[in-house]
Amino acid sequence: MNNEIKIFSPATVANVACGFDVLGFCLDSVGDEMVIRKTDKRGIYITKIEGDFDLPYEAELNVAGVSALAMYNALKPDCGFEIEINKKIKPGSGIGSSAASAVGSVFGMNELLGRPYTKTQLTAFAVKGEALASKCEHADNLAPALFGGFTLVKSMMPLEILEIPSPDDLYATIIHPQIEVKTSEARAILPKEVSLTNAITQWANFGSLIHALHTSDYSLIQKSLHDVIVEPYRSKLIPYYNEVKTEALKVGALGGGISGSGPSIFTLSKGIESATKVASSMKSVYSKTGIAFDIHISKINTEGVKVL
Amino acid sequence: MNNEIKIFSPATVANVACGFDVLGFCLDSVGDEMVIRKTDKRGIYITKIEGDFDLPYEAELNVAGVSALAMYNALKPDCGFEIEINKKIKPGSGIGSSAASAVGSVFGMNELLGRPYTKTQLTAFAVKGEALASKCEHADNLAPALFGGFTLVKSMMPLEILEIPSPDDLYATIIHPQIEVKTSEARAILPKEVSLTNAITQWANFGSLIHALHTSDYSLIQKSLHDVIVEPYRSKLIPYYNEVKTEALKVGALGGGISGSGPSIFTLSKGIESATKVASSMKSVYSKTGIAFDIHISKINTEGVKVL
Repeated sequence: MNNEIKIFSPATVANVACGFDVLGFCLDSVGDEMVIRKTDKRGIYITKIEGDFDLPYEAELNVAGVSALAMYNALKPDCGFEIEINKKIKPGSGIGSSAASAVGSVFGMNELLGRPYTKTQLTAFAVKGEALASKCEHADNLAPALFGGFTLVKSMMPLEILEIPSPDDLYATIIHPQIEVKTSEARAILPKEVSLTNAITQWANFGSLIHALHTSDYSLIQKSLHDVIVEPYRSKLIPYYNEVKTEALKVGALGGGISGSGPSIFTLSKGIESATKVASSMKSVYSKTGIAFDIHISKINTEGVKVL
Repeated sequence: MNNEIKIFSPATVANVACGFDVLGFCLDSVGDEMVIRKTDKRGIYITKIEGDFDLPYEAELNVAGVSALAMYNALKPDCGFEIEINKKIKPGSGIGSSAASAVGSVFGMNELLGRPYTKTQLTAFAVKGEALASKCEHADNLAPALFGGFTLVKSMMPLEILEIPSPDDLYATIIHPQIEVKTSEARAILPKEVSLTNAITQWANFGSLIHALHTSDYSLIQKSLHDVIVEPYRSKLIPYYNEVKTEALKVGALGGGISGSGPSIFTLSKGIESATKVASSMKSVYSKTGIAFDIHISKINTEGVKVL
């Protein structure tokens, strides 16, 4: 068995419009690269961090380290692990940067140990790392990073993750405006109560979206990708949100919303050509603002985290 | 072309736990029988009503008549129609009695006229009849009566109905306690606002239920059939609700809830044997109460309203 593997841990989009807090999907064009190395020396050691983001080397303070420690302490293997992180997903971008790190370490260790754990069990370890970054236990980025495709986190306690199929030609376009949206602020801005009418609209759309993904019905994906609960509040935290979305829809995006708690904005499109047009439309909106931004175009990644 | 047909218009269950206000399914063991006759004389005439329920003969005051008139006035055919109703579903039972009548007339007329309308268009006419009975326009019983199986009414404006597949061996058991639950009271008891936390739980369960129906996953149907929003309020209006549900779950029901706005209680089971055990458990609870009741066991009817 190999003592070292290199893995790709993908970025993800959580809070998919009407699927707030439960639905996520996986990207393939952006992700962290990590090397996991089995060592004789016991313990978890972050030995190398690339990427310009000032992340801590202490395992207890590093997202990848914390999830690794959760698994390590549960399994108590007769070895240790070194973790190298080539951080490519910007922290705070809203596309699952911490989830990618949290997933990468436990996935890599699990591979090196001959897969003692299921993906759902790995998710439970990764939740501990994610919690370090986001101050709460959630799995809506972790699940798509581990399983690929679209995932529905049906419940956290017990952890239950459903893999939702999706059509072959579905692409995401994402713009990351380089501003900070504090997760605490994104949370505080949400109402504690919502109208029953809006809640019904949201679950009608969400049920419809799950059906549309199962039936590869792009038109129904389009009609279902609405968020009447969270978007009206959180979109205020993202400059030019409405302009970006309006222009994206004009050039053919099926729909979109806030990625995670922002500031990234995601859209879904049928086909790469449409996704590319959407990228241009986003660029033309944001080029005029003076705010720096990244744009990603990605096929839905049905594989998730993988060995390179 | 025949000038007269006899049809079976089935009972239905709406508000399927987490699918409140949008999901419904169709029964096959109970329904109205209706005869629709094409006549030279213009107009819509209710010519016969069987069943002991004191329903009006004036078309404008009869659910089946109102939906028939909506279609008749839209199409303006060169003929008239007589409608005979053998009313077998008790009005006020919560299993779509008015919906069955509203659907039967327009379905029958559409058949006799060579099907000028789609099922969704027929639903729109039937909504007018349903509104006479329930004082509001909704389609969550009409859609399953017309389409059969499970239906999701994604939106009313425009009317959009999704047909959700379901596993072959799924049965419903329904108890109808013969008490009156006023629809107005069932509506008034609902909160106008719900917690965001509960709303998220509800759409997680609802998305999960749609996925479970697509994948014939009985265990996931079981885990998804929960209603944290409406059941806590409306169940108070139905005597021995908790006892019925508890005993049904004990003997193997996958889950259940209030059928429509009650007083009927529905459960779903895998297989007729389980559904029959559930019926016995319901009977043993209600036999002790002194309240009269009916119990129905039914396979999910995937066909919907049909010509006999």
